[in-house]
Amino acid sequence: MTKERVCIIGSGNWGSAVGKIVGENVLKHKDIFETEVRQWVFEEDYKGEKLTEVINREKENPKYLPGIKFTSNIKAVPDLIEASRDASVLVFVLPHQFVRGVCEKMKGTISQDAKAISLIKGLEIKPEGVTLFSEEIARKLEMTHVAALSGANIADEVALERFCESTIGCRSIEDGQLFFKLFNTDYFHVNVIRDYVGVELCGALKNIVAVGAGISDGLGYGSNTKAAIIRLGLMEMRKFGQTFFGTVEDSTFFESCGVADLITTCSGGRNRKVAEAFAITGKPIDVLERHMLNGQKLQGTLTAQEVHQFLSARKMTHEFPLFETVYRIIYENAPLESIVRDI
Amino acid sequence: MTKERVCIIGSGNWGSAVGKIVGENVLKHKDIFETEVRQWVFEEDYKGEKLTEVINREKENPKYLPGIKFTSNIKAVPDLIEASRDASVLVFVLPHQFVRGVCEKMKGTISQDAKAISLIKGLEIKPEGVTLFSEEIARKLEMTHVAALSGANIADEVALERFCESTIGCRSIEDGQLFFKLFNTDYFHVNVIRDYVGVELCGALKNIVAVGAGISDGLGYGSNTKAAIIRLGLMEMRKFGQTFFGTVEDSTFFESCGVADLITTCSGGRNRKVAEAFAITGKPIDVLERHMLNGQKLQGTLTAQEVHQFLSARKMTHEFPLFETVYRIIYENAPLESIVRDI
Repeated sequence: MTKERVCIIGSGNWGSAVGKIVGENVLKHKDIFETEVRQWVFEEDYKGEKLTEVINREKENPKYLPGIKFTSNIKAVPDLIEASRDASVLVFVLPHQFVRGVCEKMKGTISQDAKAISLIKGLEIKPEGVTLFSEEIARKLEMTHVAALSGANIADEVALERFCESTIGCRSIEDGQLFFKLFNTDYFHVNVIRDYVGVELCGALKNIVAVGAGISDGLGYGSNTKAAIIRLGLMEMRKFGQTFFGTVEDSTFFESCGVADLITTCSGGRNRKVAEAFAITGKPIDVLERHMLNGQKLQGTLTAQEVHQFLSARKMTHEFPLFETVYRIIYENAPLESIVRDI
Repeated sequence: MTKERVCIIGSGNWGSAVGKIVGENVLKHKDIFETEVRQWVFEEDYKGEKLTEVINREKENPKYLPGIKFTSNIKAVPDLIEASRDASVLVFVLPHQFVRGVCEKMKGTISQDAKAISLIKGLEIKPEGVTLFSEEIARKLEMTHVAALSGANIADEVALERFCESTIGCRSIEDGQLFFKLFNTDYFHVNVIRDYVGVELCGALKNIVAVGAGISDGLGYGSNTKAAIIRLGLMEMRKFGQTFFGTVEDSTFFESCGVADLITTCSGGRNRKVAEAFAITGKPIDVLERHMLNGQKLQGTLTAQEVHQFLSARKMTHEFPLFETVYRIIYENAPLESIVRDI
């Protein structure tokens, strides 16, 4: 049997934490995986050196995950085509805006029998439809074996080996077993389910709920109210999945990608925090993004806007009152108090 | 049609918050309910006066819910039999250890057609079986129309009219509609479901999970771990219900009494707090109960012990690893770290 050759595409905070896990696991399962794991790293300067060279020397990504060592079988590669050459397992873990470009470059260089798993956060929601990144990868690279991983997984805590769980959604049981071996550890418990659509939907829609929870926190509404918003949000996530993707299952929302990730996102998390500041200070979201996120865009408000446009095109905004109220508060100056009054 | 005469049995913190809601709602639905609501108040001295007299004069319970006014149709009555005379709707909202005694006294004085709803927290779990308080009330008073209410409802926040949700479990649709009118308000959203067993189970078992969450907090494990413990706890609550009561439904755990109450209990709440102190200080639970709860008993640790004895008698402790680990940490000196290692 030919061994699987793993390539990780991406090396930010989460990509680095995942690199640590994958590096350890291929050594544990040498019968299945090639020892060397190549990781595509977007080349940048780090204190006068090339980042890939620092990573390969120090076995650490000092820019995005300082203080955490990788196993020595992880090899940082700055060239995408070289990194993914002959790979049979691709782990996509990069910001969603780069997925298309990366796939475009790799087109024709990857075997159609290769397997891919998407750890990309978010969805592409346009008025005409919702695109899952796992499906986008499959389409661009003409692959059929695709899966998605999502869960209550703050990267820094995972890197410190704090116990957590994660969910892999995967149509094929065989692929699911392979991905399980690639990701599961003593401290990172993986559950494999078939509903990959639900896994990816949860990862995007939870951020809208976190904005709602942050507004409630900013208004000082207390924990009963916040729990109600989280619960109603979970119900709208489920309804969205079941209305627009018949295959989404109830049980998915009991998985780590569902209720657990939602709880984490609504307790800590940048979406909750910026929304809380929005409610307290009254400053516009873009100003807060500059102050609090170094100008990075907040996921939850963008997703709320995309979901609003998607629902509007179908005259269904009234069926998702929490999603819609978050949108109206952020983009249409609806009063903050409508977060409870209108849901 | 004869109007319903409502009696509230109990007047602590939660009983007083509920008295406020019920008082308002009977005035809103005068076609259904008699205006006067009698509330049985355990008589005690309050600053040299009788508590019932203070309540009836001030329209406020200054001992258990200071600063919150009732509508003037609430009448505090110190005598149980007088309070419940001719009542057709009984609202039980008192500490669980008093339920039996109260029912014993009322026996024979209440119409068998009367309806009762239990807001009592907890269950009676003995090695030989689990007793729901709604069923205990039904048995003692020879009634058939019983229901239960539970949710993410911290009394002080409800009294301040902060938005929240609650769940009523009720076998009969007709009774459910009546209880909905008695409890639902703009700020207290009630959902009526049929699975009253699930509603009551959630209210008791969540406290074990909160002890686990508190131990994790005390160990500084972070939010991924806590979310995993909450999720695993929810799964064990569901499994417990479905193993020992076939009627418990998946959907109940998506209600306020399920996931929402669990979230609230695991974020604030005395069970979480005392367990956190237990993990940090190493002091025994009874010492912490004296220091932190004025000697009151912690619900979650007691329930963990009762559940352990119940499961032991059936050789099933290994099927509920979180419940069992909480028990072993608290009562058998298992290491704190087993909260993640053994689940």
